[in-house]
Amino acid sequence: MVLPSILSFSKQLIQQAVHPGDTALDATVGNGHDTLFLAEKVGSSGRVYAFDIQPEAIHIARRRLESARLEERVTLFTESHHRMAELLPEDVQGRIRGAMFNLGYLPHGDPSIITRPETTVPALEAATQLLAPGGMMTVVLYTGHPGGQDEADAVIRWAQGLDPNRFQTMWVQLPNRNCAPSLLAVEKRSKT
Amino acid sequence: MVLPSILSFSKQLIQQAVHPGDTALDATVGNGHDTLFLAEKVGSSGRVYAFDIQPEAIHIARRRLESARLEERVTLFTESHHRMAELLPEDVQGRIRGAMFNLGYLPHGDPSIITRPETTVPALEAATQLLAPGGMMTVVLYTGHPGGQDEADAVIRWAQGLDPNRFQTMWVQLPNRNCAPSLLAVEKRSKT
Repeated sequence: MVLPSILSFSKQLIQQAVHPGDTALDATVGNGHDTLFLAEKVGSSGRVYAFDIQPEAIHIARRRLESARLEERVTLFTESHHRMAELLPEDVQGRIRGAMFNLGYLPHGDPSIITRPETTVPALEAATQLLAPGGMMTVVLYTGHPGGQDEADAVIRWAQGLDPNRFQTMWVQLPNRNCAPSLLAVEKRSKT
Repeated sequence: MVLPSILSFSKQLIQQAVHPGDTALDATVGNGHDTLFLAEKVGSSGRVYAFDIQPEAIHIARRRLESARLEERVTLFTESHHRMAELLPEDVQGRIRGAMFNLGYLPHGDPSIITRPETTVPALEAATQLLAPGGMMTVVLYTGHPGGQDEADAVIRWAQGLDPNRFQTMWVQLPNRNCAPSLLAVEKRSKT
């Protein structure tokens, strides 16, 4: 197939923006797959900052990184991603080359613990400020769980308000798949 | 920029599916840019079938192809694309590797002559039947002209009804661009 799945497309876009030595952000660690993916892409001289509010997620991710011997490239925060601006080192500002959000709930975890628009949208706003010129952010949106559609609507409304002179956006849906996730991509333009 | 424009993305998808010796379809010749693009991709042993209801469009496209000395690779029909199934040679059935639709009206032409859902949807349906396994169809949708939103809605409703076991689909919008076109891509799965 030429047309990728939503998760593959997200990774394709990120790996076009993130190179060895870069700084990246996993805003929703979850089971740590994206954290590991980013740790591979930034190489031994790069750094990944990763957030999840659930200690269980951070624990799983840490073990996954340790198995791959990549834990030294990653700083894990057991904190809500909407606090990233205050928690990240100052020199990260404007240096994030790739940022990944995978919304909803932790697979195999407590489905009542979900990302919510009142913290998701501030986190997205913070991440766009942290992006480097030419940096890429991907947001995977789920609508199959209670609250998912409201969150997706809030995220797309937020994206509609982004200044087109500063950000290029793209929203990818799969029309003939029920409850498939969709993908929002936000790319920060290089200085004009 | 990593994120492509809608027209570039359409071409990127088509050129991953169409190779020298292939058969391709331009369902909306317009100013002939896509016809020429497809004629280049199918090579000297391939063939492009191209439709437009307006003689003016066919005339412009013919001259564009002649300038590139590629007119022998293309069969131009001054006919509505919804008649493609009856007008195309029988051996084209199931052999189209790439099909392009660019809806709306002819740029610099008569803006009252627009594609309309009652012929667009049958044309899309016919084109999906003509696609080869692994073949790709792209549809560029405009909503900035009267009737455009209704047509786009009808096309997406049609796409939502495509059997996911036979077709992979993707709908790409640019949330922070007013009146930007959107892109529907339909890929026919190889035999399962």
